[in-house]
Amino acid sequence: MNDLSDRPVTIEDEIAAMRDTWTPTRRAVAPGMEEHLYSIKPVLDHGFIRVIDYMGDDAAIVQAARVSYGAGTKHVQNDEGLIRYLMRHWHSTPFEMCEIKLHVKLPVFVARQWIRHRTANVNEYSARYSILDREFYIPAPEQLAAQSTVNNQGRGAVLEGAEAARVLELLKADAGRSYDHYEEMLSQDGQQGLARELARMNLPANIYTQWYWKTDLHNLFHFLRLRADAHAQYEIRVYAEAICDVVKDWVPAAYGAFEDYRMGGAQLSAKGLDCVRRMIAGEEVTQETSGMSKGEWREFRGVLNDPA
Amino acid sequence: MNDLSDRPVTIEDEIAAMRDTWTPTRRAVAPGMEEHLYSIKPVLDHGFIRVIDYMGDDAAIVQAARVSYGAGTKHVQNDEGLIRYLMRHWHSTPFEMCEIKLHVKLPVFVARQWIRHRTANVNEYSARYSILDREFYIPAPEQLAAQSTVNNQGRGAVLEGAEAARVLELLKADAGRSYDHYEEMLSQDGQQGLARELARMNLPANIYTQWYWKTDLHNLFHFLRLRADAHAQYEIRVYAEAICDVVKDWVPAAYGAFEDYRMGGAQLSAKGLDCVRRMIAGEEVTQETSGMSKGEWREFRGVLNDPA
Amino acid sequence: MNDLSDRPVTIEDEIAAMRDTWTPTRRAVAPGMEEHLYSIKPVLDHGFIRVIDYMGDDAAIVQAARVSYGAGTKHVQNDEGLIRYLMRHWHSTPFEMCEIKLHVKLPVFVARQWIRHRTANVNEYSARYSILDREFYIPAPEQLAAQSTVNNQGRGAVLEGAEAARVLELLKADAGRSYDHYEEMLSQDGQQGLARELARMNLPANIYTQWYWKTDLHNLFHFLRLRADAHAQYEIRVYAEAICDVVKDWVPAAYGAFEDYRMGGAQLSAKGLDCVRRMIAGEEVTQETSGMSKGEWREFRGVLNDPA
Amino acid sequence: MNDLSDRPVTIEDEIAAMRDTWTPTRRAVAPGMEEHLYSIKPVLDHGFIRVIDYMGDDAAIVQAARVSYGAGTKHVQNDEGLIRYLMRHWHSTPFEMCEIKLHVKLPVFVARQWIRHRTANVNEYSARYSILDREFYIPAPEQLAAQSTVNNQGRGAVLEGAEAARVLELLKADAGRSYDHYEEMLSQDGQQGLARELARMNLPANIYTQWYWKTDLHNLFHFLRLRADAHAQYEIRVYAEAICDVVKDWVPAAYGAFEDYRMGGAQLSAKGLDCVRRMIAGEEVTQETSGMSKGEWREFRGVLNDPA
Repeated sequence: MNDLSDRPVTIEDEIAAMRDTWTPTRRAVAPGMEEHLYSIKPVLDHGFIRVIDYMGDDAAIVQAARVSYGAGTKHVQNDEGLIRYLMRHWHSTPFEMCEIKLHVKLPVFVARQWIRHRTANVNEYSARYSILDREFYIPAPEQLAAQSTVNNQGRGAVLEGAEAARVLELLKADAGRSYDHYEEMLSQDGQQGLARELARMNLPANIYTQWYWKTDLHNLFHFLRLRADAHAQYEIRVYAEAICDVVKDWVPAAYGAFEDYRMGGAQLSAKGLDCVRRMIAGEEVTQETSGMSKGEWREFRGVLNDPA
Repeated sequence: MNDLSDRPVTIEDEIAAMRDTWTPTRRAVAPGMEEHLYSIKPVLDHGFIRVIDYMGDDAAIVQAARVSYGAGTKHVQNDEGLIRYLMRHWHSTPFEMCEIKLHVKLPVFVARQWIRHRTANVNEYSARYSILDREFYIPAPEQLAAQSTVNNQGRGAVLEGAEAARVLELLKADAGRSYDHYEEMLSQDGQQGLARELARMNLPANIYTQWYWKTDLHNLFHFLRLRADAHAQYEIRVYAEAICDVVKDWVPAAYGAFEDYRMGGAQLSAKGLDCVRRMIAGEEVTQETSGMSKGEWREFRGVLNDPA
Repeated sequence: MNDLSDRPVTIEDEIAAMRDTWTPTRRAVAPGMEEHLYSIKPVLDHGFIRVIDYMGDDAAIVQAARVSYGAGTKHVQNDEGLIRYLMRHWHSTPFEMCEIKLHVKLPVFVARQWIRHRTANVNEYSARYSILDREFYIPAPEQLAAQSTVNNQGRGAVLEGAEAARVLELLKADAGRSYDHYEEMLSQDGQQGLARELARMNLPANIYTQWYWKTDLHNLFHFLRLRADAHAQYEIRVYAEAICDVVKDWVPAAYGAFEDYRMGGAQLSAKGLDCVRRMIAGEEVTQETSGMSKGEWREFRGVLNDPA
Repeated sequence: MNDLSDRPVTIEDEIAAMRDTWTPTRRAVAPGMEEHLYSIKPVLDHGFIRVIDYMGDDAAIVQAARVSYGAGTKHVQNDEGLIRYLMRHWHSTPFEMCEIKLHVKLPVFVARQWIRHRTANVNEYSARYSILDREFYIPAPEQLAAQSTVNNQGRGAVLEGAEAARVLELLKADAGRSYDHYEEMLSQDGQQGLARELARMNLPANIYTQWYWKTDLHNLFHFLRLRADAHAQYEIRVYAEAICDVVKDWVPAAYGAFEDYRMGGAQLSAKGLDCVRRMIAGEEVTQETSGMSKGEWREFRGVLNDPA
């Protein structure tokens, strides 16, 4: 399932060779990111991300912002201060001046969520044109969760015992059988062989696919805020977390601001803000006096780390 | 699999009721499109498109263009002439002033191609949140094609006899069994029940999904040019063709220009243009004297309807 | 500067005639919006907005969301509750299912800010093709503000007396003279006349232009959050406010949620959230103990309505 | 008007220093592009483009395409052949995998055309925040063209003699006077000084602005096809041509395909294609028998290089 397969070396050899090749450039170089280049970061049972290319660094964000702020700046702001200011005030365009390109291997049902982020460039391995590998995502036992009883869109307790075993057995058996039949339908041995673009319809959503995915830092942060969040499905969250580890080393100042203002922060509504002001002034605010619905109030208390 | 299910009427009743409800509006109304509103156009074995809403008509294209061309126009161009001029000269922004919203039911492997058109708004039925229906695309016998022997990305002859029967049997059996197991894993009867967001991974790519899809006329034409084309996979082409039938009645002048300048036309390369000039001048041009590769030359002859 | 000028009726007559024409449609109709259709809402001294078309209403947002939430919903949520939930949880795609098309007349320097919102469709009156009208934005005396002494990007006190008079005089005289020369250069009376695409370069940034601008409700809300904000430049803010007045009547539930969760709310950083928690617990937090920079702390106190 | 102005070195020194700094990278390096990095390419009288950064090369296009074509490829296509195939068949996503970032100085009326290309990232120098430099585009005498008599959107013969002199005099005098008054209004010498965000409205459309502009290769080709075209206004075409010179060295194979299939080619309508087929078969086709309007027929003859 890759273009290196006809060469007498393994992918690992190829990647090692690419990692060993250093070429001089006049461009901005992010030393922390160079360390990550090409190296495979395993995600889930058969997936990975690897950084193929990048453009820019923290200084590139500042440089672009200064075109728009120019000589008018009175106070010499240091770069980190300016980056924090930009993030705080939703000045997103300077962050768009950095770009990242990843090679990702991921289950199809994860890819279907991921692709909803439209402001990105994508080249996906085509099952219309090529034959997919026999690789399926099978959850680790600790990820085999029951349907949440409070949230239609979430997980509850981990399945155990016979139920867990049965689920794993079904997932494995169905994936294997579907793939066997995919191969049988494609086979040109003693028969014509079904068109690839048709045979693929038999494959389940946990089969792995691959793509090149390229986006700018602003849109990447948006992706990470939603997908590295605790409410995101585990199977996409682990990809987002692997990307976070890379971004942290690529643009440390921007990532720090992102953590403070986006990931670790919270949006308060007008009602929430009003409650906070009253609570700081010493008032005992309850759901009834908050003006919020029960759901909102529960979420609001969660933001304040207050189980009441 | 729809929000009407708890009402004591069928979807068909609902739609009929909506079709019978006429409300006065000050907006531009496209009579040809009103005829299509809400009515279900079947596509494939279980799919459909239906028009939910639209904005604008042929006159709206002209009206928007005239803001940009204004009083400077010397010649009073009729609307159709202006629309053809805009299409011919790739002035795409006036076509963006019309918008369409469709409800589409389609197999997942078709949805995965479709979603690659990024300039659109999409709300898809969530298998993370809800349970999908037991409906799968099974090709009609005449669509059960072999892999093309000349094109990695295409279909050859129709499968026949035992091979065809075997393929249909495999597709049906695998889809049914995967769905049975999907239900078994979800079941909370005597067990916890696997989370929906996990259970869905067992479902094959021919299961049907649904979405609301909204786009502007310029981007719709781009979609139709690629997907109503003879090289598009049959299973998405039939959706594009169903949409063509609707657009034809919605904006007849724009659709006419689209047919003439996009669907029925062809892009010639510099080399192709040079060959055409020489051929018109009476020269006998061959692949060798064309400057084209064999593949290009074959395609070029195809454009000229010349099998040589 | 409009396509109606060769007709024997005034624009006002035309608009009145359009407002008086009601046509039956099967589409969703938003009664509050019909009232606004075509009517000119004056903005600044010569500008305006007018609604040309719209698609959808509050119910359309719910309808689109329910495709993605489907029959899994246990609790029958009323429409407004669902709309608030979607807004609170940044589920933006259902809001993209509504669309608005405006005709706007605005000064060029405002247009240059506005166009930075890229997710919109635009047809602008072309000064390359046509001749612009002699109309310039001249600020009202109460808007003639001095440069802010604390914010490079803001206004301070209103200018008074001789300085104000001098500024108004300069703005009027320069605009008038530049336009006179624009006409002189274009004139074909006894000379060839300079090309329009060149002559326009003499026109100042306060000349009025016009465009058709179309966007979806999600992106409109994003525009309004930034441009109806107190920190936005007055000259674009008044357009945003005029649009708010329209949206309020178009999608009252969505607009209410927008006001509560976006316009009236605030984003707290991780540090801000930590301070709020400590303050509610009774701690006296100062800038020094907050972990924030002086600028951040000042803004944080502002969010809490606390001048300290 | 730049962030380097408070340093004791000139911009030229800065740029020379950046050009002299080579850092090793593991990323793909395009040797032809490294030559262009940071060097200022003058355009018009005071404008320029300079390459700030880039991502990818010809091989990166192939690499991304191969993810989507993978091991199914039977014929070992060389890279250039594959790139030509992708361009010919409108497979645009692999070209999106290359990215370029430019610093551009350009007149405001050119910037207003340029910004219409929405799929790009932009940071513009802010006249709301900072003070613009006294630099205006004044056409060279050979660019001082009359309005076209056949095309509302074009130029005719070059102005000569007294008319030309008068135009140049007006453009220079008005720009200078407007700028003098801009400075007078801003001045805080014995007065408060008008806010920058207001004073800028007095500046004409030929004043220079600057921005950082970043886009991918596919969208760049789209920009170049429209703006390096003979019908584009001269003042933006020279920027597009300067960019062409850079792209040629950056991705020579992709640029060659672009020249052949886009710049040097032509789109034929269904009617045009029909005429070509008949003409090759020896038929004498006239406008009357072509089915085309007069305008279309004239353009069609132009494509065939046939003045008839």
